[in-house]
Amino acid sequence: MTSLGPFKQAPHKLLVIPGPIEVADEVLFANAHPSMSHVSPDFIPVFGDCIRMIREVLFTKGAQPFLISGSGTLGWDQVAANLVEPGENALVLNTGYFGDSFTDCLETYGASVTQLKAPIGGTVPFDTLAAALQDKRYKVLTFTHVDTSTGVLSDAARIAETVRRVSPDTLVVMDAVCSVASEEIKFDEWDLDVVLTASQKGLGAPPGLSILLASPRAVGVWEKRKSKGVREGSYYASWSKWLPIMKAYESGSAAYFATPPVNLIYAFHASLSLITAKPSASPDPETPLPSVNERFALHRTASQRIKSAAKGLGLKQLPLQDAVAANGMTALYFPEGVTAGDLLPRLGAKDVVVAGGLLGSIKEKYFRIGHMGVSVVDSRRGDVEKIISALGDSLREIKDAKAKAAK
Amino acid sequence: MTSLGPFKQAPHKLLVIPGPIEVADEVLFANAHPSMSHVSPDFIPVFGDCIRMIREVLFTKGAQPFLISGSGTLGWDQVAANLVEPGENALVLNTGYFGDSFTDCLETYGASVTQLKAPIGGTVPFDTLAAALQDKRYKVLTFTHVDTSTGVLSDAARIAETVRRVSPDTLVVMDAVCSVASEEIKFDEWDLDVVLTASQKGLGAPPGLSILLASPRAVGVWEKRKSKGVREGSYYASWSKWLPIMKAYESGSAAYFATPPVNLIYAFHASLSLITAKPSASPDPETPLPSVNERFALHRTASQRIKSAAKGLGLKQLPLQDAVAANGMTALYFPEGVTAGDLLPRLGAKDVVVAGGLLGSIKEKYFRIGHMGVSVVDSRRGDVEKIISALGDSLREIKDAKAKAAK
Repeated sequence: MTSLGPFKQAPHKLLVIPGPIEVADEVLFANAHPSMSHVSPDFIPVFGDCIRMIREVLFTKGAQPFLISGSGTLGWDQVAANLVEPGENALVLNTGYFGDSFTDCLETYGASVTQLKAPIGGTVPFDTLAAALQDKRYKVLTFTHVDTSTGVLSDAARIAETVRRVSPDTLVVMDAVCSVASEEIKFDEWDLDVVLTASQKGLGAPPGLSILLASPRAVGVWEKRKSKGVREGSYYASWSKWLPIMKAYESGSAAYFATPPVNLIYAFHASLSLITAKPSASPDPETPLPSVNERFALHRTASQRIKSAAKGLGLKQLPLQDAVAANGMTALYFPEGVTAGDLLPRLGAKDVVVAGGLLGSIKEKYFRIGHMGVSVVDSRRGDVEKIISALGDSLREIKDAKAKAAK
Repeated sequence: MTSLGPFKQAPHKLLVIPGPIEVADEVLFANAHPSMSHVSPDFIPVFGDCIRMIREVLFTKGAQPFLISGSGTLGWDQVAANLVEPGENALVLNTGYFGDSFTDCLETYGASVTQLKAPIGGTVPFDTLAAALQDKRYKVLTFTHVDTSTGVLSDAARIAETVRRVSPDTLVVMDAVCSVASEEIKFDEWDLDVVLTASQKGLGAPPGLSILLASPRAVGVWEKRKSKGVREGSYYASWSKWLPIMKAYESGSAAYFATPPVNLIYAFHASLSLITAKPSASPDPETPLPSVNERFALHRTASQRIKSAAKGLGLKQLPLQDAVAANGMTALYFPEGVTAGDLLPRLGAKDVVVAGGLLGSIKEKYFRIGHMGVSVVDSRRGDVEKIISALGDSLREIKDAKAKAAK
């Protein structure tokens, strides 16, 4: 790898939205890699390493990664166009905006979708899920591990266990765009079939890469479709096109379907190298690099600190119980009488950028803080402290301003 | 824009394949922009400017740009999924590998495709085209402006003129992945309907952005589909999803469908700013920046120098006539008895990276040189001279080695 040299990213406001997130200097420097051929012998192992390292992050030995130029959304198309044939049934556990959108995507490719909608801030009860699975045969079940719109965390292990028990052939598809590398995921142990994500959240790289891992069971279902002669519903998202490419790069040769985002693959490689590094690989012996499991713990700790500070400031979380609140982000209702226009600019003036609401019906009533990647793993940055103090200061300023105006 | 500061890309081999191409330091530095929110007021005008500038590069006032995270291939999906309804006819002018693939893409979405195949190195005769258009009603005609596999340049103006004359309602779709900003394109004057391209060739940015411009006529055809209730064939490539996003960013507000590749948009902005800059904007008054039209001329000149040097070395071009040879790349047959394994490593040892063949039937018999963007526009780099001398030296070395071995 090229040495980092004097590169240091420009001073900027702290970006703590639920993705894109702050990224390490090493990652940005890699994104500025000189132009390279996508079939160069120097680039091939970089791509191959990304395939191998993403398996490590997800604790899987046998899943097949797909790394494709595109946003996280493209993962839905991969599922809908490769795994579901027109007219087949899909069950969507809906915990927010992204459940609605995944439904829309599945229907575009001809799936017959049943949704189980959770109340805002809640999850679907497991007996409701079991009953639905008993009621009808579903080709796939999809759920959002962390719905970025609500900050609701689903119990992936228990969902997968329920499906395997009640409807063993149903494929378990997890939208993990806002959870990979920030929430615990054990692909093989939990017996998941698809985990789809993107580069710009917990994985700590710039946006532009759709990342999907498919279990041998899922690949088998797709192969059966092919053997029946049922054409995939998409060209760009077709596994027939991409599988040979992934296999080639992993085995050390190049193949061409569409030009990969070469620079971003270098950046992704730099971030994955940090995430999967042996503790001893740290450049600073005083601060060994955390393991993947330690990273999950660091995200939990940072999350608890932020959520507890928010509670202390009188803010109410959108998730209905702590057990269903994400560890990589926090969704908070504004206090009575406070709007996004009051709070977000005041945070911005303190160089802290958070996100507004996204879920249609309550969009104006809440805001979201992302706390993933270097912001929580590298404590020397002090990002968590900065978020907490900016939030407290801003709310006090608003209170003072309102008191003044009322006089 | 952030100042370039001390950033200079690392020394590396000269990349002169037909994309990705060498890019300017400014562009790579922009690709290393600190993480930014995709809905930030600072980012919105950057995205909006890209939309405005790409119109300038293509000489269009009224076309609608779509800038989507993905490779150039995604542009085909956009055409096939939005403009062609299942069962409708598409006519493909095939001048190489990319004609085969576009056909495959159109068929995936249900189009009934007729191909007019040119001989290797040639184009489809205009009377053949006119006869085909008279014979059947086609929803779209597609052609590859420069087929990257063969280096064949199609006469876009005359193709469009022929379609308008014989079959005025047929949409003229140009795959311009390997021609935008290196070959003359006059979108409005030539009355084109779709021009699709990618970021990593003449446009001089890293790969990862699908760029498509649609005429008001093409948008009208798509709107008619929507009004008839015919759903688009793709979710990720759906204009229903993307058009509101493009309109929002251009008008100065943010909207969300899928996270844009923020860093790459900064890089694309940096490259478009150089391409569309007023000559007076050059930092060095001695070397004013060329206009877009002057860039076309610079590509023609560099191309002629390389092609004439290759001819002098006894190399035969793949395009059958000079008039159908691209100006942004050169495809050359190996001399008798010389293989890719003889020539490419020798060029590589001289820090010049070219590409092998791509067209299946003759893949082993030829190689390709890209000469686009900064490599031809910034003469101070000396890239053209470097290509020519490395090619001459390598061929002489091969000759000497073969003579020695024969002794």
